[in-house]
Amino acid sequence: MEFDPREHQHTRYNPLKDEWILVSPHRMKRPWKGQVEKPSEKKVQAKDLNNPLCPGAVRGNGEVNPDYKHTFTFKNDFPALLEDVPDPGPSQHPLFRSEAACGVCEVMCFHPRSDVTLPLMTLYEINEVIRKWSERTLELGKKYRWVQIFENKGEIMGCSNPHPHCQIWASSFLPNEARIEDRSQKDYYRKHGVPMLIDYVNQELEMQERSVVHNDHWIAVVPYWAVWPYETMLLPRRHVKRLYDLNDTERASLADIMKRLLTKYDNLFEVSFPYSMGWHGAPTGDMEHIENSHWQLHAHYLPPLLRSATVKKFMVGYEMLAQAQRDLTSEQAAAKLRELPEVHFMEYNS
Amino acid sequence: MEFDPREHQHTRYNPLKDEWILVSPHRMKRPWKGQVEKPSEKKVQAKDLNNPLCPGAVRGNGEVNPDYKHTFTFKNDFPALLEDVPDPGPSQHPLFRSEAACGVCEVMCFHPRSDVTLPLMTLYEINEVIRKWSERTLELGKKYRWVQIFENKGEIMGCSNPHPHCQIWASSFLPNEARIEDRSQKDYYRKHGVPMLIDYVNQELEMQERSVVHNDHWIAVVPYWAVWPYETMLLPRRHVKRLYDLNDTERASLADIMKRLLTKYDNLFEVSFPYSMGWHGAPTGDMEHIENSHWQLHAHYLPPLLRSATVKKFMVGYEMLAQAQRDLTSEQAAAKLRELPEVHFMEYNS
Ligand SMILES: O=P(O)(O)O[C@H]1O[C@H](CO)[C@@H](O)[C@H](O)[C@H]1O
Ligand SMILES: O=P(O)(O)O[C@H]1O[C@H](CO)[C@@H](O)[C@H](O)[C@H]1O
Repeated sequence: MEFDPREHQHTRYNPLKDEWILVSPHRMKRPWKGQVEKPSEKKVQAKDLNNPLCPGAVRGNGEVNPDYKHTFTFKNDFPALLEDVPDPGPSQHPLFRSEAACGVCEVMCFHPRSDVTLPLMTLYEINEVIRKWSERTLELGKKYRWVQIFENKGEIMGCSNPHPHCQIWASSFLPNEARIEDRSQKDYYRKHGVPMLIDYVNQELEMQERSVVHNDHWIAVVPYWAVWPYETMLLPRRHVKRLYDLNDTERASLADIMKRLLTKYDNLFEVSFPYSMGWHGAPTGDMEHIENSHWQLHAHYLPPLLRSATVKKFMVGYEMLAQAQRDLTSEQAAAKLRELPEVHFMEYNS
Repeated sequence: MEFDPREHQHTRYNPLKDEWILVSPHRMKRPWKGQVEKPSEKKVQAKDLNNPLCPGAVRGNGEVNPDYKHTFTFKNDFPALLEDVPDPGPSQHPLFRSEAACGVCEVMCFHPRSDVTLPLMTLYEINEVIRKWSERTLELGKKYRWVQIFENKGEIMGCSNPHPHCQIWASSFLPNEARIEDRSQKDYYRKHGVPMLIDYVNQELEMQERSVVHNDHWIAVVPYWAVWPYETMLLPRRHVKRLYDLNDTERASLADIMKRLLTKYDNLFEVSFPYSMGWHGAPTGDMEHIENSHWQLHAHYLPPLLRSATVKKFMVGYEMLAQAQRDLTSEQAAAKLRELPEVHFMEYNS
């Protein structure tokens, strides 16, 4: 029998995280009798003064939000990271090591209305979000080593407020994922003399089979080593280290590809597609000026849905204790997303 | 201000996984407005011939289950790993690496009745499960490098059948988690001349503050570096490499500590406590006889609930893209579990 990646189980290597994933395409026909998610029934209102993210609403700490027109950024009222805390001091035992951590947690609203999401916003409005992302990274990056921009979208992803928003957690330390990506990209650069993700972008542009959408400056692919069923990676085609290194044209182009990718996501199961997403770029703060040529800016989109709006992939037992596993191959997921229209189903259906 | 680990954020190091976690105890007071889980309303029947795990039921492939009295093990009808598949051959590019994978997936029922769980079973019955775990590890370990026993418990953990059961996936490859734990334990052993987890057990027995329950042969602790709110690690006090190295006394003692730990778990929120759990021990197959003294057998219990039977900890945006984060400290979680009765609330309430 000849090996067919669409039929035969195999493992694939993720060079960015230095880990493997088990691909079992033959398992696609498994019936599902487990938990189904309840689609959110609450109809979201455009404006609700009880929602602390709305313009004019009063937040937990008594502050009144301005009547903002595009984005609005403020400090999280329940931050996981505070700016100033005492240092735990040196550890006494190699198995009980702790370190100091400080930082800041911000919330960024994308739009004054609660009933829109990024794919339903205009290119101009998305561009405003991107500009703000760059600005906050630049600002917080003056002090902190790592500025993590991330969006939890949908209740299934722990998002507790339907108003379109993301979070920005800046920290004095390089978090695990950053540390691992830094090391892997550095090793690759040393060995091959080219940034890993530039090599990767070029390969994917040439092969096409995992590309979902691309334009003059960006490409979105289901990575060869994707873990989540419809996971994608969004990358600039040029070597760019951080969000604030993008020029005007590249930001406009990013707004374009984001709208197209996220519209496809929503169209896949005709639902506002849940995911966690986030940006990774070269470290900042006191690490800004060390050698960082191995870094390439990119975003990860990690959506949990597998078969429909209500059936997700569970990353549980085997995945938590041994290794990530997927059924659908990356190439199959990419083909499915590629075929979907770039007009949003809500406009289409109305 | 002096550093107080119960109040001040800090990071902690997980020496087994070589990664860090962010601890933010000051964030415990955060209100929760996000998704609440729907507690399963289905009343589970003791026996249902439509349930493919019950004695006498017909499975998907047409086979009839025997009228088993204790455990019953069979091959998964929708396995992620098959025994015999073609090899992908050598990879052409360092960014597109795949490898051959083969293995076998088994399902093990713990008990003939669908309406019991491990903490509600007798010590004798739990002992039968442990004996079977050892036996399957020994048998599958003859051929495969890694035998992963794991239990997904509860719908919230992707468990699609209420009948008490676990799974066993044996593979020709060392999965990520195994590979990482192997490396970390090896490094520690080289440096300190003692297995890492033997040092750890002794420290925890002495300090007590993270111990949940212990007996003559075992200890269950909320590890210093726990990620999930009520995560525990269960370890033999003696140096034991694999499940099948346990003697009769140690197996009986394991049944005792499992019943006590799992009863406390159920009592925490008066619900059948969901979790994913699994065993890790020294590799097997062609790796059985290489130097493995650095390995110590242990089980991880990874339960998602945070505040109540319906509010879980979401490991999303920041956790997926940067670093795991927790509010409650390990010491606080351990104290809470320690105080709970060792009589099951269902017996207590009736
Ligand atoms: O028990 P099942 O239905 O085979 O499957 C469950 O556990 C597997 C192993 O952790 C996961 O890969 C699946 O996503 C999950 O639904
Ligand atoms: O958005 P929230 O409510 O602050 O919190 C959400 O995202 C955080 C960062 O990923 C997680 O730590 C929380 O578990 C999740 O509920």
